[in-house]
Amino acid sequence: MQKKIMNSPLEVAKETMEGFEAAYLGSAKKIPEHNALISTIKNNRISLLIGGGSGHEPLWGGFIGNGFADAVVCGDVFAAPGPEAILDTIKAADNGFGVVIVHCNYAGDNMNFNLAASMAAEEGIETRTIRVWDDIATGSRFEQEGRRGLVGSIYVFKVAAAAIEKGLSISEVERVTCEARDHVRTLAVAIKPGSIPATGKPTFELSDDEIEIGMGSHGEAGVKRQKIVSADELAEQMLDLLVDDHQLMPNDEVAIMINNLGASTFMELAIVNRKVLALLDEKKIIINRVDIGTFLTTQEMAGFSITIFKLNKNLSSLLNMPASSLCMKI
Amino acid sequence: MQKKIMNSPLEVAKETMEGFEAAYLGSAKKIPEHNALISTIKNNRISLLIGGGSGHEPLWGGFIGNGFADAVVCGDVFAAPGPEAILDTIKAADNGFGVVIVHCNYAGDNMNFNLAASMAAEEGIETRTIRVWDDIATGSRFEQEGRRGLVGSIYVFKVAAAAIEKGLSISEVERVTCEARDHVRTLAVAIKPGSIPATGKPTFELSDDEIEIGMGSHGEAGVKRQKIVSADELAEQMLDLLVDDHQLMPNDEVAIMINNLGASTFMELAIVNRKVLALLDEKKIIINRVDIGTFLTTQEMAGFSITIFKLNKNLSSLLNMPASSLCMKI
Repeated sequence: MQKKIMNSPLEVAKETMEGFEAAYLGSAKKIPEHNALISTIKNNRISLLIGGGSGHEPLWGGFIGNGFADAVVCGDVFAAPGPEAILDTIKAADNGFGVVIVHCNYAGDNMNFNLAASMAAEEGIETRTIRVWDDIATGSRFEQEGRRGLVGSIYVFKVAAAAIEKGLSISEVERVTCEARDHVRTLAVAIKPGSIPATGKPTFELSDDEIEIGMGSHGEAGVKRQKIVSADELAEQMLDLLVDDHQLMPNDEVAIMINNLGASTFMELAIVNRKVLALLDEKKIIINRVDIGTFLTTQEMAGFSITIFKLNKNLSSLLNMPASSLCMKI
Repeated sequence: MQKKIMNSPLEVAKETMEGFEAAYLGSAKKIPEHNALISTIKNNRISLLIGGGSGHEPLWGGFIGNGFADAVVCGDVFAAPGPEAILDTIKAADNGFGVVIVHCNYAGDNMNFNLAASMAAEEGIETRTIRVWDDIATGSRFEQEGRRGLVGSIYVFKVAAAAIEKGLSISEVERVTCEARDHVRTLAVAIKPGSIPATGKPTFELSDDEIEIGMGSHGEAGVKRQKIVSADELAEQMLDLLVDDHQLMPNDEVAIMINNLGASTFMELAIVNRKVLALLDEKKIIINRVDIGTFLTTQEMAGFSITIFKLNKNLSSLLNMPASSLCMKI
């Protein structure tokens, strides 16, 4: 049974955004009629807009700030924002230098962000849109644009923000953001479902001794359901898939993100991280940066994802530019 | 039934600390024979040591870094570290300027940290120990030293770290850390239990429609069990207790922390935060800072706590000094 602290299950997306707005203490304001937030710090540069479905908090609302996004637009729980909401957010975010948009690769998001970008163009606002498709469980590595987007989107939009901060042209920002996107791969596993506030229903069912490999961020079926194994075995199994998909070689340099999908403990993430970094070390892969925490969730789903961002000198320098938001350190 | 990603349930505390060590990428090292971490950055100043039971991650291991702790020592899950482990960590942490220790007020911790401090004194190492007792559910406000410690400890040791960084004497650091401790109050509620890795058993039982007010960080019974209410009602009920205990007045300035006890969603925290800040605003209390996230957990317990840190100019300046660790932004 779903048991959550909320007011009305149908108001959670709106009230969540109001909660984010309150937490920003004036540095970001909600657009009254939409689930959207705009930074109140105006800059003479390109703006960065991110967004997608609600229910994955702290993504998206927690990532406004210096070195992160200037604006966020969300739909209802697990639903793309509508084209009007996106258009209004683009208009509010634009400072006359255009808007770079990063979102995940889902049919609804693709359609609505595209439509809004076309409408913005008619009003004279230049936009560039980058779709993130880091989930290796959803398609071959030779057809990446068929893959879904997951928490690797944070690395992608952090690079976009840094490129904007450095003063690159909108075309250069687009190019380097696409380069980052093409270097990020994620694999998620789940052991318990989350539930959808409006229905109270779990997003999937799984036996007490089973784990789902390749779980999607709305509870979509993965590539494989198997008996649960030890943390070390699981880490090795997941890392092999990621390293193979990424074609990683000795001396490659990477950033690693271990993301809690909701109800997993940090203890479990730390135990997995211990094995992941040891395995990468054995493979002579260089670890540039580690991010462990709760970044993109599927409500109270228990499980985690591993993201590998393969770096080069330029991407490393952009990724590690200082940044701070409600929900992520420098 | 407990369902967790781990190797051996009896090795989780050790492997968690190894996972933290790996994540620090060389900036903190584990003491091989203990669940303890020491920063590898040596400073010519007082050192700050924090610690307590494991199983509350990201506290304690996630809080080594600039503006946070220099050393961490943990016991097994929900158990105080032993005096030998604490002593060895004090010795490893000391740079010849003494060690300030912050821990939570529990009998086992009190006994072992005291014993270790006496042993350190015999070896010529000066220590000062501050116990945190921020849980308003466990005793009257006129007998605060009978209260348990909760997540307010993060604010307390962040102030200690800042005071050390500013170059205060060890007595001055102790004084201002005690002042911070006396200005921090927390109240926690839970709606679902966590489970203990070694036994697989839930830490308490609660009906599907009930909530426990004043839940302890190991699942200790609170002050009241009641039917679950809306997020807004709950926020008001909790805030009234905190404001009353704190004797807050209009124009008082505070920092607010909304902490996830484990399996609650960030969505729920945001919805609660929205109401908490609105209520404080009605009471003309000034919000200086908001921290929302997962800081001190009771494994996968669902619930959250609200912490109010009543500030003055000096405490505000210390609290807001730049800092970064694995698990908390500036």
